[in-house]
Amino acid sequence: MNYLEMLENSKKNIGEFCKVCKECNGISCKGKIPGPGGKGLGLGFIRNYEDLRKIRLNMDTVYLNKGTNTEIELFGKKFKYPVFAAPVGGVQIHYSDLYNDLTYSKAVINGCHKAGTIAFTGDGVKDEVFTGTLKAIKANDGWGVPTIKPWSKEEVIKKIKLSENAGAFAVAMDIDAAGLSILAAQGKPVSPLSKEDLKEIVNSTKLPFILKGVMSANVARKAIEAGVYGVIVSNHGGRVLDETPSTIEVLPEIVEEVQGKIKVFIDGGFRSGIDVFKAIALGADAALIARPYAISVYGAGEEGVELYTEKIGRELAEAMIMTGASNLSEIDEDKIR
Amino acid sequence: MNYLEMLENSKKNIGEFCKVCKECNGISCKGKIPGPGGKGLGLGFIRNYEDLRKIRLNMDTVYLNKGTNTEIELFGKKFKYPVFAAPVGGVQIHYSDLYNDLTYSKAVINGCHKAGTIAFTGDGVKDEVFTGTLKAIKANDGWGVPTIKPWSKEEVIKKIKLSENAGAFAVAMDIDAAGLSILAAQGKPVSPLSKEDLKEIVNSTKLPFILKGVMSANVARKAIEAGVYGVIVSNHGGRVLDETPSTIEVLPEIVEEVQGKIKVFIDGGFRSGIDVFKAIALGADAALIARPYAISVYGAGEEGVELYTEKIGRELAEAMIMTGASNLSEIDEDKIR
Amino acid sequence: MNYLEMLENSKKNIGEFCKVCKECNGISCKGKIPGPGGKGLGLGFIRNYEDLRKIRLNMDTVYLNKGTNTEIELFGKKFKYPVFAAPVGGVQIHYSDLYNDLTYSKAVINGCHKAGTIAFTGDGVKDEVFTGTLKAIKANDGWGVPTIKPWSKEEVIKKIKLSENAGAFAVAMDIDAAGLSILAAQGKPVSPLSKEDLKEIVNSTKLPFILKGVMSANVARKAIEAGVYGVIVSNHGGRVLDETPSTIEVLPEIVEEVQGKIKVFIDGGFRSGIDVFKAIALGADAALIARPYAISVYGAGEEGVELYTEKIGRELAEAMIMTGASNLSEIDEDKIR
Amino acid sequence: MNYLEMLENSKKNIGEFCKVCKECNGISCKGKIPGPGGKGLGLGFIRNYEDLRKIRLNMDTVYLNKGTNTEIELFGKKFKYPVFAAPVGGVQIHYSDLYNDLTYSKAVINGCHKAGTIAFTGDGVKDEVFTGTLKAIKANDGWGVPTIKPWSKEEVIKKIKLSENAGAFAVAMDIDAAGLSILAAQGKPVSPLSKEDLKEIVNSTKLPFILKGVMSANVARKAIEAGVYGVIVSNHGGRVLDETPSTIEVLPEIVEEVQGKIKVFIDGGFRSGIDVFKAIALGADAALIARPYAISVYGAGEEGVELYTEKIGRELAEAMIMTGASNLSEIDEDKIR
Repeated sequence: MNYLEMLENSKKNIGEFCKVCKECNGISCKGKIPGPGGKGLGLGFIRNYEDLRKIRLNMDTVYLNKGTNTEIELFGKKFKYPVFAAPVGGVQIHYSDLYNDLTYSKAVINGCHKAGTIAFTGDGVKDEVFTGTLKAIKANDGWGVPTIKPWSKEEVIKKIKLSENAGAFAVAMDIDAAGLSILAAQGKPVSPLSKEDLKEIVNSTKLPFILKGVMSANVARKAIEAGVYGVIVSNHGGRVLDETPSTIEVLPEIVEEVQGKIKVFIDGGFRSGIDVFKAIALGADAALIARPYAISVYGAGEEGVELYTEKIGRELAEAMIMTGASNLSEIDEDKIR
Repeated sequence: MNYLEMLENSKKNIGEFCKVCKECNGISCKGKIPGPGGKGLGLGFIRNYEDLRKIRLNMDTVYLNKGTNTEIELFGKKFKYPVFAAPVGGVQIHYSDLYNDLTYSKAVINGCHKAGTIAFTGDGVKDEVFTGTLKAIKANDGWGVPTIKPWSKEEVIKKIKLSENAGAFAVAMDIDAAGLSILAAQGKPVSPLSKEDLKEIVNSTKLPFILKGVMSANVARKAIEAGVYGVIVSNHGGRVLDETPSTIEVLPEIVEEVQGKIKVFIDGGFRSGIDVFKAIALGADAALIARPYAISVYGAGEEGVELYTEKIGRELAEAMIMTGASNLSEIDEDKIR
Repeated sequence: MNYLEMLENSKKNIGEFCKVCKECNGISCKGKIPGPGGKGLGLGFIRNYEDLRKIRLNMDTVYLNKGTNTEIELFGKKFKYPVFAAPVGGVQIHYSDLYNDLTYSKAVINGCHKAGTIAFTGDGVKDEVFTGTLKAIKANDGWGVPTIKPWSKEEVIKKIKLSENAGAFAVAMDIDAAGLSILAAQGKPVSPLSKEDLKEIVNSTKLPFILKGVMSANVARKAIEAGVYGVIVSNHGGRVLDETPSTIEVLPEIVEEVQGKIKVFIDGGFRSGIDVFKAIALGADAALIARPYAISVYGAGEEGVELYTEKIGRELAEAMIMTGASNLSEIDEDKIR
Repeated sequence: MNYLEMLENSKKNIGEFCKVCKECNGISCKGKIPGPGGKGLGLGFIRNYEDLRKIRLNMDTVYLNKGTNTEIELFGKKFKYPVFAAPVGGVQIHYSDLYNDLTYSKAVINGCHKAGTIAFTGDGVKDEVFTGTLKAIKANDGWGVPTIKPWSKEEVIKKIKLSENAGAFAVAMDIDAAGLSILAAQGKPVSPLSKEDLKEIVNSTKLPFILKGVMSANVARKAIEAGVYGVIVSNHGGRVLDETPSTIEVLPEIVEEVQGKIKVFIDGGFRSGIDVFKAIALGADAALIARPYAISVYGAGEEGVELYTEKIGRELAEAMIMTGASNLSEIDEDKIR
């Protein structure tokens, strides 16, 4: 199966809400929840995509060619590309029941591992989603980053311990899920967490802890003070609050605040290797991608995940050739405008 | 009945001009008067909506959660949300004859009161609209703000006295109706009023007097000098003059001029609790909403008004949770960009 | 007949190129010559219209009402509104053969005169267009401004003399027609004119001489040095050169250059009394309008011209009421943004 | 045959990917490769076209007319217009098999020569494309600029020698083809070239050497240091890397860097003589055009090439008349905004 066949297949499998659009830009699905849309007017999603368009690459093919290396090292591990699958939850509701959260997690964990990268995986109201996913991570020698919702501190720490036992390389928390009233309605409330509680959580484990949902320098500073390994600049794909800034818009001020003290990841509207190139040029270490991985899983399971990851990686390498970057550290602000 | 059912119902009831669009943004109805459109090219309405889109919310869920209080105190009374129904007139002409100005007023007065907020009500060429509405306000223990057109000074003062007798909490005047030649054609001319006349009107009553239709710092200053309780930043939904600025665009300069001396309300394109959040962050005290309330009344009468008001309030509370504001005074400029 | 009926009538009469669009903005006719479109991509026309949209009116209805006077004095004559019909040529080709250049001229001269304003009339390859039009001007006691193409100096001076004899209030020249190769193809070449030649032409007559087609401070300065009575800021409706600036965009720098030494007229995309208000606020003395007059003539001849002129005048007066200007000199930059 | 008939003819001949759109702006063909589209989202192509729209011409027809000369001298030869056909390859794949790369090259070489300008011609994996094209250049007394891909240094130097033997006026290299993995897949890899290798190549010939694919001042400086005769500001029509800046956007900084030391050509979205005027006003010496020449060849072979070239030239001359430039050196920045 090739990439285009996978997309064709996905159109048949993915349910009524996602149209597997030529450009996955949040327009046709805006407001569709259930479905993959941004909340409300869908502007959190749409602007992520549109603001990425404002950054352009400075072509340069006059240089001594030293080859192209897209590898990145994180948590003491080497990954083939600075591109990871982002956590996606509720796939049965938002896409179709061809997958559930558990079978979905397995597909992205396996596919990313085969492609040389790693999947961040999701959390749910029912415990078996989290514990089942951990089994898949364990079966992949720890290649997976469980992402825990902002439940009560005790619950979070319990889930971190389970992650340690599964051998996960790191753990994450999507703190921006704090306003999801749907979870409270299902009997498991989430909530904002104070910097102090966050610190306690971070200190409860030796695993690198990554905070997802940071959208300003102010919040990044609090995350640093809480001792995190890294932050993910994310507006949750526009699904927790409408009319936020785009992630790429706030990235520079966060990079400026962070000053290299912690790692900076980013997600939101990333589709191509060129998008990943842009984020790195602006100071991010790596990018996470969500919706296109869902499309890939529904198109061809873990093979789809591999196909898509390799496509992104190839595009990133091409962009590096066309701008004169032989490795990720050479992708700097001079290479964009 | 839920909110979506109410909208479906409204589509059937509301007549040919309003399409109950997914986004009530002034595009499909532009120029439609009769109908709910903006005058001329409809840009007064359209820009109100579009300029609200330019403001984004800074997400922050790393904080100590102290709960969320959306209450506001005005005229010595407490309201559940800083959201009020704006006066709407001529509903039979602009929507359909399922309602007339009197039955419409009753529905918004009752519905807003039940939801814990208050309705501003309209005025008309025929006296019974105003007097009938006052009865509904009286029946609701004064929960309503009669909004008087800029008739002759004597006429205005007479109507204020009637409002006092009905126990209304406050009175308002939509001075921006001064150019409505249709009223003169019906034998009751309106006109601009000098600052001196305005002062005399304000001094004629102990009720808080609110001036609606202020679109510059210059006019706000005149209103302060005339002794008003508050101003409503409003371009009359784009229905009295085409090609004005949007209300959200001029809000900051008016807030700057006012310096907290009087209250600042705003209307124009407000649809969601996030929109209300934005206005408060820019220094407004509260927002008024017109067209969506008309849609709600035609959809489900006072129940529709309640449904819509609660929806707005819920969205405002969610936005506060997602940005770390526990009450309205914590919604400041740092929370938007 | 009312204005809307006139438009309906025009749709039937005006031929295949003009669609009598709801917004006469140059989109549907772009590139249509023959037809009323802008040349090439049509951007000269389209931008005239679009850039007018960028200017907004500052509403103010808190003032002492002293009535509204829209009159203007030019050439020692008083006109009811600062709005004049612009010269239009080749109507048979661009619209339909219901009118020819001569019958068209008569309709706008008569209609404008009846409405209290004046028409600028066109010139043609065949002498009878110009001489015939002069007869209509003479029959209207000189209420018309013949607009001569940049033919040879001798030819221009000859036509000015004819205009004097007909009692015309003033004469104009559309110097921006200098590149119309179609005229050379018909045996009557036009050409740019040096400042010296222009001076000689201006000095050949005691009539006020107006230069049409000025699009920069630089050219305005040359016109002043040549001794003109006034300039018309015009890109010829985008019909002589594509991709010029809009007229409203260059108006401020021309007003700045002129410093009140000569009169400044403007055309290009003006449709409503609000548009006229904007130009005056930016320092123009009056506006010319072309295409809507063509639509009006094809809809109802001189009655159409009257109807449209009165509509524009009414809109201008309403804008003055809504912004607090009692006469044209009170329309200043503070009234727009 | 006239120009419009030629376009009609082209629509029939040109295959399924190109729609011979009214505006050749990259929208309808975006992402179509095979086909004439820009790569990926097609933004490299689309922005070339759109950014040209941002520049406007300052009309001026008040000046002493000294006639209009559009001639340019390059390589010691005089050309009628500063407009050249850009190299186009793979026409069978991207358009239709009515032409192949060899018959296409012959048509543009002959047509441009007849119209008084010159064609840049392409290179291919198969040697006969290059050598066959050289025969056509030789038959046209050297009126053609062979454009060589960035193969190995030896291969490039060999092809330059062949070009010398054919009497070509100059040679070029499209260094921005360095990332075309499709060529490696066909057994002939291309690659970025160091400044030193480039210098060696330039020094291997007495022919003027032009480097195509320069998109920043930085790369222009390297080209100058390598000794080139000129650079072509080009993003390869958006076909080698998506999301580059537009060429007209980067032109000013390259002109600033070059300071007249070498010639500056530009391509990318140029369609009309007005576009050419804009580039010259911003400091370019001449423009290259690709897609419209392909459309012209498929419409009417070398006659189409002549028709289109003359159209462009005529439009350039008209723009010069309307702005007061009597020769190319008088087209300066004051003539645009």
